[in-house]
Amino acid sequence: MKNITDLKTVRLRDDLNAVVILDQTRLPAEESYLELSSAEEIWDAIYKLKVRGAPAIGVAAAYGIYVCSRQIQAASFDEFYTEFHRIKEYLAGARPTAVNLVAFLERMEKVVLDNVSATVSTLVELLHDEAITIREEDAAACRRIGEYALSLLRPGMGILTHCNAGHLAVSEYGTALAPVYLGEERGYGFKVFADETRPLLQGARLTAYELHRAGVDVTLICDNMASSVMQKGWVQAVVVGCDRVAMNGDVANKIGTSGVAVLARHYGIPFYVLGPTSTIDKQCPDGKSIIIEERAPEEVSEMWYTHRMAPDDIHIYNPAFDVTPHGLITAIITEKGIAYPPFEESLKL
Amino acid sequence: MKNITDLKTVRLRDDLNAVVILDQTRLPAEESYLELSSAEEIWDAIYKLKVRGAPAIGVAAAYGIYVCSRQIQAASFDEFYTEFHRIKEYLAGARPTAVNLVAFLERMEKVVLDNVSATVSTLVELLHDEAITIREEDAAACRRIGEYALSLLRPGMGILTHCNAGHLAVSEYGTALAPVYLGEERGYGFKVFADETRPLLQGARLTAYELHRAGVDVTLICDNMASSVMQKGWVQAVVVGCDRVAMNGDVANKIGTSGVAVLARHYGIPFYVLGPTSTIDKQCPDGKSIIIEERAPEEVSEMWYTHRMAPDDIHIYNPAFDVTPHGLITAIITEKGIAYPPFEESLKL
Repeated sequence: MKNITDLKTVRLRDDLNAVVILDQTRLPAEESYLELSSAEEIWDAIYKLKVRGAPAIGVAAAYGIYVCSRQIQAASFDEFYTEFHRIKEYLAGARPTAVNLVAFLERMEKVVLDNVSATVSTLVELLHDEAITIREEDAAACRRIGEYALSLLRPGMGILTHCNAGHLAVSEYGTALAPVYLGEERGYGFKVFADETRPLLQGARLTAYELHRAGVDVTLICDNMASSVMQKGWVQAVVVGCDRVAMNGDVANKIGTSGVAVLARHYGIPFYVLGPTSTIDKQCPDGKSIIIEERAPEEVSEMWYTHRMAPDDIHIYNPAFDVTPHGLITAIITEKGIAYPPFEESLKL
Repeated sequence: MKNITDLKTVRLRDDLNAVVILDQTRLPAEESYLELSSAEEIWDAIYKLKVRGAPAIGVAAAYGIYVCSRQIQAASFDEFYTEFHRIKEYLAGARPTAVNLVAFLERMEKVVLDNVSATVSTLVELLHDEAITIREEDAAACRRIGEYALSLLRPGMGILTHCNAGHLAVSEYGTALAPVYLGEERGYGFKVFADETRPLLQGARLTAYELHRAGVDVTLICDNMASSVMQKGWVQAVVVGCDRVAMNGDVANKIGTSGVAVLARHYGIPFYVLGPTSTIDKQCPDGKSIIIEERAPEEVSEMWYTHRMAPDDIHIYNPAFDVTPHGLITAIITEKGIAYPPFEESLKL
């Protein structure tokens, strides 16, 4: 397998006092990197999906708030924390559905609150270490997720995925794509079908891109072709990532995921959700409690296009995520293992 | 309701010796018309979807072969028929899945074969009349389909449709959209959800366009959002057209239709297929016998876009249609009435 990790999704560059991200809105046309040093730049990069994928957003925000904290001018803890908290709340609002964004920012805030008697320079140092730890834990979790998921797959399988939960969404090998990469290293010869994932085309631009770059056999399809390839018997497993998992196993993920789950159930194909435990929201009892981000109609009608592809002034409904009810999910795979229904029990472990 | 039929999908213009079509690849940006006088122009317009929709293709081909027959230089019936047959076979190959194209061309050919002793000028006259009859029968069938289908719907319903089986696909009010237009005339206040229908965006460019132009409440969604709007309880019926109906009720229609049918079944929503009996292929026992057209990968990766949206050299699977198994279909509605399962029986009527 070719090396994929020379694509650097999110990096901390202390020397530049910046978070450096691969601008995913420019893929696949060009690999260009952005240096983000201010809270506004970080917020904008997350909101505009220059960095996306639930874990990657969380890591970018953790790195980001550390970079911002270095720039805080404060004479006391209270002054420091007031400004830190303002930035944290601001960054947390960039996207409402992914739990990791808030979870990782709260881990960073806890470092501050646990050290009220520390100097500002010590606080900044502790924040640096916490951000690095978050990133390392994420990378380790992905590898374990990949190993657990690979144990459910067999060589030669056709695997369908939706959106992008690969290297570009996370660290190292991603979540949903981790078993694909590990399988590729071990000669499994998977055939991957990548839903293009309208409206933002993460499947076409990112999943097809990173898998092809790594030498994996990938076939791009439009979202509405998933039924057709399943009907033909070309798909033996579906793997997707997740943006928030409720305690009953309902899963918020990229819009269209619930439809793929319904299709998988109909065609008798296992449907696996892969994500780190940081994506499980202990405050969230079920999918009905998950706020689904609605985005601008222009993403559907004109973004990417040479000219507008829908009439002016029509209604456009553009939710960024949907909720897949737990009843359609075969297993939820985290770094701690494979959780089967009933998820109320298995997700507590 | 505003008048929609001033958009002229397909017209015969004897004075121009041409078939005049609305170039649907230019919608919604502009309403421009093309004059087609040669077999090559007609083939190209059908292949490139400048005119599309199973009945509209059939009518364009019927008009087209008449226009071409006027230009045949022949001293005998045999000379005339040889050239007529060559053109017929050529036009029939423009798109393989829609049955109406071949069916209407064969009706035209039968006129020739039934009149072996007629003069060339009489043959041309008979072909003219047959083409006009085909068009008139199609328009009358659409209205009856609309009335039958409307009897299954209730005011205020949310109705989801896929691709375009409206005025732009057929004559007058279309097939799948005929009950929507008739309901609109009668104050039913339907709320229509139009799947954008990748890769060629017929839902965004055509369905949303013609419904909005007629004042119908239409909301455009990406194909992968259908599950979400159904989950929310916003859809009480699905109406789609069809390109070929097998004798067991399996239906070939625009790619993605089978997925919508699976979703409708899952969410307990009736799934109605609307089309004229000319779309039923008596030679076709089931969906497995239907040839599914595969189209160029560029339709998925770069058509419409400002720049290519998928990596070079990856596999792209781009079927134009899929087959919806009869078991997922609530009813097939033709100009002769509402056929319920078992379709082997009900489609024979």
